Amino acid sequence: MVIAMRTIEWDQDSRSVKMIDQTLLPQEYRVIKCNNLALLCEAIRSLRVRGAPALAAAGGFGIALAAELSSANTMEKLLKDLQIAANTLKATRPTAVNLGWGVERVMGAVSHAYDVAGIRDIATSEAMRLADEDVLINKKLGEYGASLLDDGDTVLTHCNAGRMACVDWGTALGVIRSAVEDGKEINVIACETRPLNQGGRITTWELMQDNIPVKLISDSMSGHVMYKGMVDKVIVGADRITEDAVFNKVGTYTHAILAEEHKIPFYVAAPVSTFDFKNWEENVEIEQRDADELRFVGDVQIAPLDVEVYNPAFDATPMEFVKAIITENGIFRPPFLLDEVRT
Amino acid sequence: MVIAMRTIEWDQDSRSVKMIDQTLLPQEYRVIKCNNLALLCEAIRSLRVRGAPALAAAGGFGIALAAELSSANTMEKLLKDLQIAANTLKATRPTAVNLGWGVERVMGAVSHAYDVAGIRDIATSEAMRLADEDVLINKKLGEYGASLLDDGDTVLTHCNAGRMACVDWGTALGVIRSAVEDGKEINVIACETRPLNQGGRITTWELMQDNIPVKLISDSMSGHVMYKGMVDKVIVGADRITEDAVFNKVGTYTHAILAEEHKIPFYVAAPVSTFDFKNWEENVEIEQRDADELRFVGDVQIAPLDVEVYNPAFDATPMEFVKAIITENGIFRPPFLLDEVRT
Repeated sequence: MVIAMRTIEWDQDSRSVKMIDQTLLPQEYRVIKCNNLALLCEAIRSLRVRGAPALAAAGGFGIALAAELSSANTMEKLLKDLQIAANTLKATRPTAVNLGWGVERVMGAVSHAYDVAGIRDIATSEAMRLADEDVLINKKLGEYGASLLDDGDTVLTHCNAGRMACVDWGTALGVIRSAVEDGKEINVIACETRPLNQGGRITTWELMQDNIPVKLISDSMSGHVMYKGMVDKVIVGADRITEDAVFNKVGTYTHAILAEEHKIPFYVAAPVSTFDFKNWEENVEIEQRDADELRFVGDVQIAPLDVEVYNPAFDATPMEFVKAIITENGIFRPPFLLDEVRT
Repeated sequence: MVIAMRTIEWDQDSRSVKMIDQTLLPQEYRVIKCNNLALLCEAIRSLRVRGAPALAAAGGFGIALAAELSSANTMEKLLKDLQIAANTLKATRPTAVNLGWGVERVMGAVSHAYDVAGIRDIATSEAMRLADEDVLINKKLGEYGASLLDDGDTVLTHCNAGRMACVDWGTALGVIRSAVEDGKEINVIACETRPLNQGGRITTWELMQDNIPVKLISDSMSGHVMYKGMVDKVIVGADRITEDAVFNKVGTYTHAILAEEHKIPFYVAAPVSTFDFKNWEENVEIEQRDADELRFVGDVQIAPLDVEVYNPAFDATPMEFVKAIITENGIFRPPFLLDEVRT
């Protein structure tokens, strides 16, 4: 199987948002088209498209879709429709900062339009530009990050911060791809990432497409493989980086503590759009997901139907455990100063 | 639903080993009878019965079953048949020391018999005595351990070291049961325990039967709940305790490191039969289980069919991270001296 398209795209013919449905991987590679905002929001909420950078593109394309669908014939009415769409989109996943960033970027661009047609044109073109830039950003980020990896390294990663979490190439896995492109041999240990198994389903599949050696473990084995000397580096993505903490898929903090204990460098790979330095850990709402995610896998019941469940989507890793943040502007080390990151 | 029997019993009527099939929990409570050694070995290997103390009983009952089924009419032939059965039973799960301990205890008892009928009688009665003693041991262990728990504590546990891991009552969960019996309010956080979900399927179910409040999390959330101050103590069982390490379900080491980092006491609850102080960590073979355990949940595929998998059943937690070991002989603290534990 070859990945024939980007993770998420604007489909000019059908005027809709086209994406690979990631909930079906690895059994099925299916492309779906969202031709209204409700479908797109459902796709975001149920993680058909997920991953911080891909969500930025989804947010941008969502505004383009709303502009396309609105029947408003005045600028005021159209901008009002877009504002409603913006709020709806941002509410789908409260923790990921990139989603809101993508929405706001396109909203900012359309504010410079002179007429209704201009708003529609700008919305689409700006969303497409955002997606194109994401690919360039990840390639750049990958190049910087590759310098941190040595030939023969085994890298442990959590969740999927790969091509499928972005428009293309990937952040954490983009760093690995770039190192492999440089001729280094890199082995990956993928944590399955309960409860939705993005590591087991998507990271493994994605790396196997590229013939990058990958081994699957359960999340709980992370300490054991580090103890056994099987891990040289840990690289993860991020959903939001505040002044004091990195928010990423729940489980990231556990790996960070284990890496610290075993003196293994813990790196975060994320575009600058992930930074939210005006906020602090305590201000960030962590999305709580449905209890059934821990009671079922597909239609297989794996816990009592009425068991109480705690299911946060993300956790916060304090900055002190982060050895470096890899961005498209370079590699940043403690103390992480926003001014340095932005330039 | 009420648990009407012990986890594993000798069924005098059918001359077979009767057990609750734990692979079907929590959807179905089904009792199965193993009337030959192949069935019993299959039940052990596929974890229909699991947990160190329950495996000791399974080993003992296995010898009783072999004595019952053998057509040998001389002591020499019968003892030879039992020796073959002993080797077969011990090979089913190489890491759990209790299985071999149960087998050897009944083998030792039959060596004192005077005739063929005596061997058969002693095998059954000794296996039943072992099972009865396990219940008493766990109650004793629970009483000692309860003193470590304070009213209002939340205890995090991994896998199932409960009634279903023993003949009855439980080790780690036995401590919690005893504390509850003493009138303390104890909340439990159960890690689901990938890949076979003994925590999500069995620990939750077992505690809910007893109305002990339990919350289910994914294994990877362990660090996050500790960071959030939601955990007061960690208690786990053990499959083997060597001079330098505690072997228990894979993931235990991860929780131990996290507990250390968050200054949360990490306790191990295990009968003295779990101690194997003549061995060291490096001498213990860790059972590697089938890769499909991480590729499927029931018939639901959760990873590429051909992905490489690392799937050890256990990990080793160095003694330095263990704050106390709770046994039927009392609570032991570092340095853990075998002579103290045995008296």
